[in-house]
Amino acid sequence: MPATAWQFESARGHQTHRLTYEIEVSEIHVLLIQLFTVFVAAAVGSEIAVRLKMPSVVGEIGGGILVGPQVFGLIPIVEGHAPMPFEMLAEVGVVFLMFHVGLETQLSSLKRIGKLAVQVALMGVAIPFLLGMGWGYSMGYALSKQAFIGTAFVATSVAITARVLTDLNALQRKESRVILAAAVLDDILAMLLLGAVTALQPTEPGTGGSAVIQLLILGLQAVAFLLAFTIFLPKLVRRHHKVIDAPASSNSPFILSIILCLGISVLAMQIGLAAIIGAFLAGTLLAEIGEEYRIERQMRPLLIFLAPFFFVVTGSKVDISIFAEPAMIVSGLVITVLAVIGKVVGCGLAARRMGKISALIVGFGMSPRGEVGIIIAALGMKEGIFEEKIYALIIAMSILTSVISPPILAALIKRTPSDETTPQAA
Amino acid sequence: MPATAWQFESARGHQTHRLTYEIEVSEIHVLLIQLFTVFVAAAVGSEIAVRLKMPSVVGEIGGGILVGPQVFGLIPIVEGHAPMPFEMLAEVGVVFLMFHVGLETQLSSLKRIGKLAVQVALMGVAIPFLLGMGWGYSMGYALSKQAFIGTAFVATSVAITARVLTDLNALQRKESRVILAAAVLDDILAMLLLGAVTALQPTEPGTGGSAVIQLLILGLQAVAFLLAFTIFLPKLVRRHHKVIDAPASSNSPFILSIILCLGISVLAMQIGLAAIIGAFLAGTLLAEIGEEYRIERQMRPLLIFLAPFFFVVTGSKVDISIFAEPAMIVSGLVITVLAVIGKVVGCGLAARRMGKISALIVGFGMSPRGEVGIIIAALGMKEGIFEEKIYALIIAMSILTSVISPPILAALIKRTPSDETTPQAA
Repeated sequence: MPATAWQFESARGHQTHRLTYEIEVSEIHVLLIQLFTVFVAAAVGSEIAVRLKMPSVVGEIGGGILVGPQVFGLIPIVEGHAPMPFEMLAEVGVVFLMFHVGLETQLSSLKRIGKLAVQVALMGVAIPFLLGMGWGYSMGYALSKQAFIGTAFVATSVAITARVLTDLNALQRKESRVILAAAVLDDILAMLLLGAVTALQPTEPGTGGSAVIQLLILGLQAVAFLLAFTIFLPKLVRRHHKVIDAPASSNSPFILSIILCLGISVLAMQIGLAAIIGAFLAGTLLAEIGEEYRIERQMRPLLIFLAPFFFVVTGSKVDISIFAEPAMIVSGLVITVLAVIGKVVGCGLAARRMGKISALIVGFGMSPRGEVGIIIAALGMKEGIFEEKIYALIIAMSILTSVISPPILAALIKRTPSDETTPQAA
Repeated sequence: MPATAWQFESARGHQTHRLTYEIEVSEIHVLLIQLFTVFVAAAVGSEIAVRLKMPSVVGEIGGGILVGPQVFGLIPIVEGHAPMPFEMLAEVGVVFLMFHVGLETQLSSLKRIGKLAVQVALMGVAIPFLLGMGWGYSMGYALSKQAFIGTAFVATSVAITARVLTDLNALQRKESRVILAAAVLDDILAMLLLGAVTALQPTEPGTGGSAVIQLLILGLQAVAFLLAFTIFLPKLVRRHHKVIDAPASSNSPFILSIILCLGISVLAMQIGLAAIIGAFLAGTLLAEIGEEYRIERQMRPLLIFLAPFFFVVTGSKVDISIFAEPAMIVSGLVITVLAVIGKVVGCGLAARRMGKISALIVGFGMSPRGEVGIIIAALGMKEGIFEEKIYALIIAMSILTSVISPPILAALIKRTPSDETTPQAA
């Protein structure tokens, strides 16, 4: 109907009215065409990647580069953002992805490797931070800028690794559990580090005191959040999970699970953590009862449809034009190699008693910086801490670590049989 | 991460930078909160409706009224639109809903009732059109305006009925197939009628000739589209459906189905039909092979998550403030009753040999005007054909027919056992 009306409008030539109507009605039309384009780009990219024996996520990011403004320009990127409807689909997609990973992760299995995960997270923050500072020092920046660059080296985007582990059916491996638990702690540490480093910036003197208090409050909130999810809430769910079946609708377990996932994601954002960390923890809460109510199986089609939007949108933000200068290519490669080394050495050292290959899996699994690195780079740019060039390099590093790590991770996982592949009990 | 950054910003009081960053990053945050709110409103509304023995769609529209700007104002509506991310989720939701209905509808079963469907569609267009014109005449409007009002009385929104039929597990009933086939034809007839009536408007003389040609082209396009879907494409799918399994990804049948659904929806929009008509026809194409590839089962979770956005967004657009005047309440009821009578008498007469109750099911099934009526009202308003009052009344009629019909439909369906409840063959 809408398009017809519009066609008749133009046939009749009502210039003034026509224009308004055209924009209003055809906005949905254009969105639907873009949605179709993005989904096809993801499917084609994924198919090509799989045939080249690469993880499908690499193909989806590649598809995103193609539909992005630098190549075909099918999806406009304005100030680092895709159109909001696509940002929203991307966000929901990655939230559901991490919720699904949580559903396949028994909390007890995370606790068992808790100490190791703490070591991996701490070392995985410390070494990249120092390497980032060192790179900043070598570029001749002041200490406060070095610290901010170091922070951009720290934050892991676990969504990409989670997707690779899911596709390889490797979520039940010990390395996967170490990665997931360490990623949760990594997000908390990175948040606190970002707070501390931001407070360090010399732009606004005399507010150090309140920043420290803020930092303490955030830290306590994060710890309370984590404790609630590891101690209090699992008991609650175990005792009262029949409530999920109480509503009249036969779909209620699934609907309530989605509500829990979205609600806890919002709550995590509210206290300064990433939404995906909330989604993952929400998933672990339901892991024990997920099988009984077939939640995991019902989440899967949602992922298949929505998760690609996250990876295509990530890819569409890649600005390949910065690599026109040969000097930038070299700098981009250097910063990327440093970022990967930081995690592989840091996390790998902490995980070395798992064996060499396993330690490498953990290290490369923690390497992708993805959207988290991009967010920190954008913050540094807005704050005037980074100039255009560092910004571009950190964006490049965030994307390159996300593209390089999955194939290495996949190759390492395929090389070693798992020690613990038994699926979780219902 | 984003929210932290933002919290530290405010702690440090960088007014200028902070504001920009805050808007950019927290836009996603706000969207996620709104998404959560809308989904909860749908779930709660649906639960209340089901407990009151009403179709859940009524509860979802009700939930939409509550989150809309007239009551709690949680979702802003600007010029008849929800924020684009929600319009997009709503559109995708209703497209998948109709695709799913198509998957459960064998094309051969539609052809068997083809003649009856044509009669139902023709009568269901003629009688409401005349009643709408009559109402316009009684209000003292010119003939060209009467014709436009008549057109707003015509168009059926089949999504609401389709949802009720799905929830009641009644898609295999003969009445359901008559409704679905008639709705496809209804959309084509309404499109042509809207074209003709728009060309009739006296604002731009001397362009009648080109409008007639446009009309012919649109008509031919629509007929060709329909013929392709009833004759040529089903054969193609039957012969070459193995292609759906060719890609390397194990999810490929599902992914290709989604691509087909979105692609044909876009194509339908492109030639002036509703996207949902394209989605429905795409579904019928895959109905025969849907079982084999478990497409229908995988679509279901997508519906459960996405379809509520359509109904909540529809509800959020209801402007209940127009009923502050008692005269408007009376007019609103009159126009709604006329609109329902038009379909019940028109479609019911055409379907009378199916028996009294079945004829009533078809009539009430064709009654909801939903978003289609709203689009025509908005067009009339923009074109200066409708004044504020008629606009408000037609919006009210579109919503009220959508809220009144489902409970009646549900009651009628529950009263009669189906003649044909056998599920479709695989």
